[in-house]
Amino acid sequence: MTAAPASSPVGLHRVLEPAGVLPQAAWRLDTDPALAHDEVRVRVERLNLDAASFRQLFDKHGGDGDAVRAEVLEIVRTRGKMHNPVTGSGGMLVGTVEDVGPRSPLGLAPGDRIATLVSLTLTPLRIDDALGRWDGRSEQVPCDGHAILFGRSVAAHLPEDLPPDLALAVMDVCGAPALTHRVVAKYVAQGRPPVVAVVGGAGKSGSLALAAARRAGAARAIGVVPVEREQQALQAAGLADAVALADARDPVALAAAVQAAGGPADVTVVCVDVPGCEHGAILATADLGTVVFFSMATSFAAAALGAEGLAADVTLMIGNGYAAGHADFALDVLRGSPGARSLFEARLAAHM
Amino acid sequence: MTAAPASSPVGLHRVLEPAGVLPQAAWRLDTDPALAHDEVRVRVERLNLDAASFRQLFDKHGGDGDAVRAEVLEIVRTRGKMHNPVTGSGGMLVGTVEDVGPRSPLGLAPGDRIATLVSLTLTPLRIDDALGRWDGRSEQVPCDGHAILFGRSVAAHLPEDLPPDLALAVMDVCGAPALTHRVVAKYVAQGRPPVVAVVGGAGKSGSLALAAARRAGAARAIGVVPVEREQQALQAAGLADAVALADARDPVALAAAVQAAGGPADVTVVCVDVPGCEHGAILATADLGTVVFFSMATSFAAAALGAEGLAADVTLMIGNGYAAGHADFALDVLRGSPGARSLFEARLAAHM
Repeated sequence: MTAAPASSPVGLHRVLEPAGVLPQAAWRLDTDPALAHDEVRVRVERLNLDAASFRQLFDKHGGDGDAVRAEVLEIVRTRGKMHNPVTGSGGMLVGTVEDVGPRSPLGLAPGDRIATLVSLTLTPLRIDDALGRWDGRSEQVPCDGHAILFGRSVAAHLPEDLPPDLALAVMDVCGAPALTHRVVAKYVAQGRPPVVAVVGGAGKSGSLALAAARRAGAARAIGVVPVEREQQALQAAGLADAVALADARDPVALAAAVQAAGGPADVTVVCVDVPGCEHGAILATADLGTVVFFSMATSFAAAALGAEGLAADVTLMIGNGYAAGHADFALDVLRGSPGARSLFEARLAAHM
Repeated sequence: MTAAPASSPVGLHRVLEPAGVLPQAAWRLDTDPALAHDEVRVRVERLNLDAASFRQLFDKHGGDGDAVRAEVLEIVRTRGKMHNPVTGSGGMLVGTVEDVGPRSPLGLAPGDRIATLVSLTLTPLRIDDALGRWDGRSEQVPCDGHAILFGRSVAAHLPEDLPPDLALAVMDVCGAPALTHRVVAKYVAQGRPPVVAVVGGAGKSGSLALAAARRAGAARAIGVVPVEREQQALQAAGLADAVALADARDPVALAAAVQAAGGPADVTVVCVDVPGCEHGAILATADLGTVVFFSMATSFAAAALGAEGLAADVTLMIGNGYAAGHADFALDVLRGSPGARSLFEARLAAHM
């Protein structure tokens, strides 16, 4: 191991172009396996692509898995990271710690099996196996290669009581249950348990958000889904007091569906990765309520101007993918919610 | 006056294409001067273009005012609203109430001088004078034409104690002081008055945000500006305890400047209309702090993934342009802050 003398905890020294920006803003990162003092090198086993990113690639290539694989390889080769230039999103990875710099603060040792909880959009990554074991038709990508973690990265040990695929899928969305719990708990602490609507309630982040909302003491949990199949699945999972059927891109329909299910919502959580859900979420939310946007397809301007245009006095939050202890919390929510676990397992089985 | 039978309080009946969306999401609105029962028609005197929108048009045409004017006319002619298709933003207008539908809930009467506080991006607008009195080189656009307000619009009477240009400029950014005050007051109520940094503190929304932060009880108010001229102006205005000089697009420089000025900030308010300020704002903010983004140039993905990538446990808020009573509050902040007023007046004078 050669140790570079000057390193930055946020990875500035790995930025090749343009110079001086943070790794996520960079076009291209340095994937040199030689570590700085505070870095960690991980042998990658699996990438978990961000849902919006995978959807974009899959749709662009009309479901042609070979073309999707070729484009992912090309992105990683040219950028030194899996950073979809169209969606701006990445994903996460699982692997085994290969080498640890002498001053790494992450508490990792060679041989540890971990998942990275910082985005692939800022993680130096080199792929060695041309993704030969991936059919290009699933977000979960078997992969051999290496990745670099900085001093201020976040990685979590994979739990021993859960299958790795399941743990990885949970960790990928662990910001959503953490923040939902925090927001709902604030309302509860003020003596007004909120009505919570989760748009995309049958999905990964959505189902955990519903479970977290209940755990935090929500007065009523409403799941909103776009198709009957998801409605039946979410009803069977028992995660919500009511499951409404609506196209989240249709503001009037979404607001009416939430209203009919016991709304308006005091807290609306948007977990669907399609554009155009901002206005419906705002319209479905009560005066002085809160909307939390977890979808990477959210438009800042549409949310800000939508609330203004609808004269909606609501708090608009950008879903932060990080909160202290979020991975452990999300795994704990899953362990305590058979319904959420069953939805995750069904989703994983469908991707096999 | 002819009254159309079926109208929607949010203006669905004015959408021409695509059908079924809210007016802001629409490509084109119906500007028919005939009113529905709950509508109001305003004779327009002046448009105040959103700063990001004007900047984009001005830069695109290299400062050629005639070309800027021609493009604004073309946008309004084809879309039935002043909705910049590149920035997605609009602005506001001032005018005189011309006609009021029998069931309008807005409390307006013909002859009232008002400003609209909903965005131009969803306000039906027809221009009658080809903007012949505008040189295309200022955000404030003298204009003759008509606009339509819906049942759920927001309009404010122009105050009699302030010049109309000044009141309009204040109302255009009145969401920023209202929300800043609300966020800071929550910290104060919890017994921990926050350090507040306002990025773009010498601008319109920034100077009012600084004044509002102090009024709410901030422990320390830090203004961040990009150039020495603004530094001197903000220091002279006395709105901040410290004025730092930094390029907000450089995350490392911005965080260092806020730190040196007494940071990190518990509350960071972003009021500059240039892209790429998300990471610096996050990096300048303390653990468990709050970042409020008021700039329409904010990227949702850059903010969400930036916080995740920096392992920053901070609350990220989309600045909502509407809050109950925001116009009156902003005007009151201005009346109570000679420093903010002097900055506004200097800015208006520079545009004459």
